Amino acid sequence: MEELLNSTAGDLTQLKYAVDTFYFLICGALVMWMAAGFAMLEAGLVRAKNTTEILTKNVALYAIACTMYLLCGYYIMYSSDAGGIMPNFGGLIGDENTAEAVLSSGGDTYYSARSDFFFQVVFVATAMSIVSGAVAERMKLWAFLAFAVVMTGVIYPVEGYWTWGGGFLSEAGFSDFAGSGIVHMAGAAAALAGVLVLGARKGKYGKDGSINAIPGANLPLATLGTFILWMGWFGFNGGSELKLSDVGEANAVAQVFVNTNAAAAGGVIAALITARLLFKKADLTMALNGALAGLVAITADPLSPTALGSTVIGAIGGVLVVFSILSLDKLRVDDPVGAISVHGVVGIWGLLAVCLNNADATIGAQLLGIVSIFAWVFIASLVIWLVLKAIMGVRITEEEEYEGADIAECGMEAYPEFTKGK
Amino acid sequence: MEELLNSTAGDLTQLKYAVDTFYFLICGALVMWMAAGFAMLEAGLVRAKNTTEILTKNVALYAIACTMYLLCGYYIMYSSDAGGIMPNFGGLIGDENTAEAVLSSGGDTYYSARSDFFFQVVFVATAMSIVSGAVAERMKLWAFLAFAVVMTGVIYPVEGYWTWGGGFLSEAGFSDFAGSGIVHMAGAAAALAGVLVLGARKGKYGKDGSINAIPGANLPLATLGTFILWMGWFGFNGGSELKLSDVGEANAVAQVFVNTNAAAAGGVIAALITARLLFKKADLTMALNGALAGLVAITADPLSPTALGSTVIGAIGGVLVVFSILSLDKLRVDDPVGAISVHGVVGIWGLLAVCLNNADATIGAQLLGIVSIFAWVFIASLVIWLVLKAIMGVRITEEEEYEGADIAECGMEAYPEFTKGK
Amino acid sequence: MEELLNSTAGDLTQLKYAVDTFYFLICGALVMWMAAGFAMLEAGLVRAKNTTEILTKNVALYAIACTMYLLCGYYIMYSSDAGGIMPNFGGLIGDENTAEAVLSSGGDTYYSARSDFFFQVVFVATAMSIVSGAVAERMKLWAFLAFAVVMTGVIYPVEGYWTWGGGFLSEAGFSDFAGSGIVHMAGAAAALAGVLVLGARKGKYGKDGSINAIPGANLPLATLGTFILWMGWFGFNGGSELKLSDVGEANAVAQVFVNTNAAAAGGVIAALITARLLFKKADLTMALNGALAGLVAITADPLSPTALGSTVIGAIGGVLVVFSILSLDKLRVDDPVGAISVHGVVGIWGLLAVCLNNADATIGAQLLGIVSIFAWVFIASLVIWLVLKAIMGVRITEEEEYEGADIAECGMEAYPEFTKGK
Repeated sequence: MEELLNSTAGDLTQLKYAVDTFYFLICGALVMWMAAGFAMLEAGLVRAKNTTEILTKNVALYAIACTMYLLCGYYIMYSSDAGGIMPNFGGLIGDENTAEAVLSSGGDTYYSARSDFFFQVVFVATAMSIVSGAVAERMKLWAFLAFAVVMTGVIYPVEGYWTWGGGFLSEAGFSDFAGSGIVHMAGAAAALAGVLVLGARKGKYGKDGSINAIPGANLPLATLGTFILWMGWFGFNGGSELKLSDVGEANAVAQVFVNTNAAAAGGVIAALITARLLFKKADLTMALNGALAGLVAITADPLSPTALGSTVIGAIGGVLVVFSILSLDKLRVDDPVGAISVHGVVGIWGLLAVCLNNADATIGAQLLGIVSIFAWVFIASLVIWLVLKAIMGVRITEEEEYEGADIAECGMEAYPEFTKGK
Repeated sequence: MEELLNSTAGDLTQLKYAVDTFYFLICGALVMWMAAGFAMLEAGLVRAKNTTEILTKNVALYAIACTMYLLCGYYIMYSSDAGGIMPNFGGLIGDENTAEAVLSSGGDTYYSARSDFFFQVVFVATAMSIVSGAVAERMKLWAFLAFAVVMTGVIYPVEGYWTWGGGFLSEAGFSDFAGSGIVHMAGAAAALAGVLVLGARKGKYGKDGSINAIPGANLPLATLGTFILWMGWFGFNGGSELKLSDVGEANAVAQVFVNTNAAAAGGVIAALITARLLFKKADLTMALNGALAGLVAITADPLSPTALGSTVIGAIGGVLVVFSILSLDKLRVDDPVGAISVHGVVGIWGLLAVCLNNADATIGAQLLGIVSIFAWVFIASLVIWLVLKAIMGVRITEEEEYEGADIAECGMEAYPEFTKGK
Repeated sequence: MEELLNSTAGDLTQLKYAVDTFYFLICGALVMWMAAGFAMLEAGLVRAKNTTEILTKNVALYAIACTMYLLCGYYIMYSSDAGGIMPNFGGLIGDENTAEAVLSSGGDTYYSARSDFFFQVVFVATAMSIVSGAVAERMKLWAFLAFAVVMTGVIYPVEGYWTWGGGFLSEAGFSDFAGSGIVHMAGAAAALAGVLVLGARKGKYGKDGSINAIPGANLPLATLGTFILWMGWFGFNGGSELKLSDVGEANAVAQVFVNTNAAAAGGVIAALITARLLFKKADLTMALNGALAGLVAITADPLSPTALGSTVIGAIGGVLVVFSILSLDKLRVDDPVGAISVHGVVGIWGLLAVCLNNADATIGAQLLGIVSIFAWVFIASLVIWLVLKAIMGVRITEEEEYEGADIAECGMEAYPEFTKGK
C-alpha cells in the first residue's frame, strides 16, 4: 500500500508536469499564430504594390527569429548572471528535464524545458513582427532581414534578460507580466529607429504641410489579422502565468483570459467612439488599432485588475492610440500601420497602469524599466540601421518605390489580376 | 503516510479543477475565433462597397457583446431564481472559487468561475454575429450597434436564463446541449425582425417578380470564414459538455468532437448534391451554408447520436438550408448571407432532432422551447428595431446604398485599388 | 484509508485518460484546421477564374474524406490482421472504452477511442488535400470528387494499415512518425498520377520549349494558407506522439513542437536564399514552399533530432523543393502549386533522413516503405483516374479552361467585382 501511494504521488507529479507543459505548448502555438496575424494586418494596410514584399518579410522574419533565438538568443536571455546588465553569450538551449529530476525537485521543475523554449521563441518573433509594419513600403527587404538577425539574436534577448532572465530590472522590481514593455515597446523602439533612418514614404507628407492618407489595399485582411492577434493573445498573456496545475494558478490563467478579452473590447469601443467624435465616421482601422491597443495595454498586468478594470485600461489605450497616430503624423513620423502608437505609446501606458492594481509595482521601477528598455533598443537599433545604411542601403530607390516594392524586391505582384500598374 | 495520502488526494482534486478550467478556456478561445469566422463569411458574401462596414460591425459587436455581458448579461443569465420567466437584474460576475471551497465541495466546484464567464461571454457574441449578416448592405451602422447593446445585455441573457440559467424551460425539460435554439435560432429571430423592419436591398427583387442574385465579392473569404466557424464549433459544442476530467466525460467530449465534424461533413455533401440537382452546378455558397447547417443541426445534441447518425442529421440540415434559402427569397425576405435559414430554420430542425436520439427529450418540451425563445427574441427585437427606427432610423438612404455603406458609414473603402466606383 | 488510496489512484488514472484524450482532440482540431490552410494556399496560387472551383473542391473533399473514413476507411486501417498486406474490409468504428476497461487495462487503454478516430480522420483529409492543388485549373470537379471517394475510403487506408495499422511495413521496421510518407508522399503520388493523366494547363508549356509562369491571383491568401498549415502541423506532428501524460511523453511532445517549428524555419531561410541565388529576387512562393518543405521533411521523425538538426533537415528540404519545382517544370509535369515537390520529393527526403537520427531505422526498411507506398498509391490512383477518364472524363474542355473552371463548374466567380473576363 505504501508502494501504491508513492507511485500514485509520483504519477500525479508527472501528470501535473505534463499538464503544465501542454498548457505551455498550446499557448505557444497561439503565439506562433500571431505571426500570421501581423502578416495579414500589415498586408491589408499597405498598398497592393507592396504586399508581396511585406508578406515575404513576415514569413522570413519569423523564420529568422526562430533560428537566431535557437542559435544564441535563448542562451543570452536565460543563462546569464542574476542581477546584471551585461549578459553572458553562448549557444545552447540546455538539456531536457529527466523524470528523476522532476520527481526530486519538490515541484520546482514543473514543465518541460523544451516547452519553455517554444513559448519564448515565439515571443521573439512577435517583437520582430512589430517592426515590419512601421517600415513598410520603402525599406529594402534584405536590409530588413539583416536587422532581424541582430534584433532577434541579440538586442531583444539582452533586454529580455534584464527582467525575465533575472537581470537588474528584475531585481529593481520592474513588473511586466507578459511584455507590454519587453516585447511591445521594444518592438516599437526598434521600429521608431528604423522609421527615423528611413524617412517617410513619398507622397505621404506634402511640402505645403498636408498629410495624405494612404489607404490600405485590403481591409478584410487587416481585420482578419486583428482577430488572429486577439486570439493569439490568449496564449501570449495566458501562457505568461507559466503554471496552471492547481486551483490558484488555474484561476489566475482564467482571470488573464477574461481580462485580455475585456481590455481588447474596451479598446475597440473607445477607439470607435473617439474616431466618431473626431471624424464623424465609424473608422474601421481605428477600431482595429483600438483592439490591439487594448491588448497591449493589459499585457503588462492582465492578472491583477478586475474584468471591468481591464475594460477601462483597454479603453484608455484605445483613446490613446487614436491621438498618438494623429500626433505622429503631425510630427511626420510615417508609420503605415500605426505600430509605434499601438505597441510603443500604449505599451508605456500599460506599464504605468500596473501601479494602479498591483501593490508590488512602483512608479519608479516602472519608469526605470521603460527608460532602460527603450534606450537600449532604440540606440542599439539606430546603430544597426545606420550601419546597414552605410553598408547596403536601407531604402529602395524612388523609382522602385513608385513601381512598388513587390516587383523590385520579390519579382512578383500580390494581386496580378486585380490591379493595373501601381 | 496519511498526510501524504491526503495531500495527494487534494492535489489531484486541484489538478482536475485545473484541467477542466483549461479545457473550458481553450474551448472558449475557439468560440471567440468564431467571431473572425462570421466576419470573414459575411465580408465575403457582400459586395465590395459594403465590406468595410460589415467588418466594422463584426468587430464592434464582439466588443459590445463582451462588455454588455460583463456589465449585466451574465448576472441576468446565471443569478436569477430557479424555474422562473422574469430574471433578476444585477451587475456582478461573482467571486472566484478559493482552493478551500474547491477541496470542500466534494467535486461540485470543478472549474474556475472566470473560465465559465469566458466561455459564456463568447457565446453571446456568437448569437449577435448571426444578426449582422442578415441585415447587411442597408442598415445604419450605429443603429445596429445600439441594437447589439440591448440584444447582448438583455434579450439573449433572458432567454439564456430560461434554460441554462435554470429558468422555466430547464424545468420543463427543454433540451438544447450547446444552443441550436438558445444561440442560433435566437440570433436568427433577431435577424428576421431586423430584416422585416428594414426591407430588402434595392434591386434584389424586381417589380416583375424577378429575384436577382447579388453575388458576394470575395468567395475565398467566405470559405475561410466557414472553415473558421467549423473549427471554432469544436469549442462551441465540445466545451458545452462542461467537464472533461474523468473517463466518461472525456469520452463524451470526444464523441461531441466526432459528431460535430461528421454533421458538418454531411451538411456539405447534402447541400452540394441538392444544389447540383437544382442548378446543375457545384454551388460553393450552398456547400458553405451546408457545412454551417450541419453544424447548427447537431448543436442541440452532439452527444447522443452515433457519428453516422450525426452525418445524417447534418445532411438533412444541408438539404433544408438550400430549400429554405430559396423559399425565403420567394417570400422576399432578403437575407444576404442566408443567416435566417442556416441558424433559424436549421436550428429548429436541430432542436426537434434531439428527440430522435435522446430518450429524455420530448417533442412537447422542444416545441415549448422553440416557441418561447422565438417569440421572446422576435418580439423583443422587433420592438427595439422599431424604436430605433423611430429615434434614429435604421436604414441608410437610397443614395448611400447605391454608393455603398463603406463610404457613407465608415469613410473608407475595403478594396480601394481593386474596384472602380460603386 | 485504503479506500481513499484506491479511489485516488483510480481517479488519477481517469484524469490521465482525460488529459491524453484532450491532447488528442486539440491536436486533431489543429489538423482539421490544415484543411483551411490547403484551401487558402491553393486558392491563392491559382488564377482568379479558377478560384471558386478549387475552394469548392477543398470543402467537398474534406467532407468526403470524413464521411468515407467513417464508413469504411477507419475499419480498413485499424481492424486488419497484424503483419499483412491485404486488409480486412468492414464498416464499424468500434465501441468506446468504458471506465472499467480503462481502470483494469493497467495503462494500456489511455485515451478515448473516439478521440483516436477524430485524430485519424483529419489525417485522411490532409492526404487528400494535397491532391487538389496539383490538378488545379483543368480537372473536372465531379471527377475529382469521385476520386476523393476512393482515395479516402480505400487507397489511403490500405497503405495506412501497412504501417500504423500494424501491417507488413510495421513489421519490417519502416519508420514514419507522423506521415512524411504515409500521408504526404502518398498524397503526392496520387497527385502525380492525376497530373500525368490530365496533362498540363493550356499555355503553360510553349511549343518552342518555353515554360510560362502562371502567377497566382492572391498571394496574401497563399501566405495565410502556409501559416495555417504551419500552425496545424503542431497538431499533426505533436499529436502523433499519441501520449502526453508523464514526464517522458510530455518532453517528447515538447521536442516535437520545437523541432517542427525549427524545420519550417530552416526551410524558409534555405528556400529564400536558394531562390535569391537563382533568380536574384526574394521569391515569396518559394519561401512558402520552403516552409512546407521543412515541415514535410521533419514529419517522418520530429522527435529524435535536436532543434538545430531539425533546422538543417528542414533547410535541406527547402533547397530540394526549389530544385524539384524547377525540374518538374522542365519535365513538363504541370503542378500549379508545387504539391508533388513539397509533399512527394521532400517526403522521400524526410523518410531517408530518419536514419540520420534514429538508430532503430534502417535504409532498407525506409526504402521498402517508400517503394511500397508510392507504388500502391500511384498505381491504384492511376487506375482510378483512367477509369474516371473513360467513364466521365477528367478534363474540362478547352473553352471551359479558357473561360475558367469557376463559371463552367460552379456557376459563380470568386471575385466578380475585381476582375474583368477571364
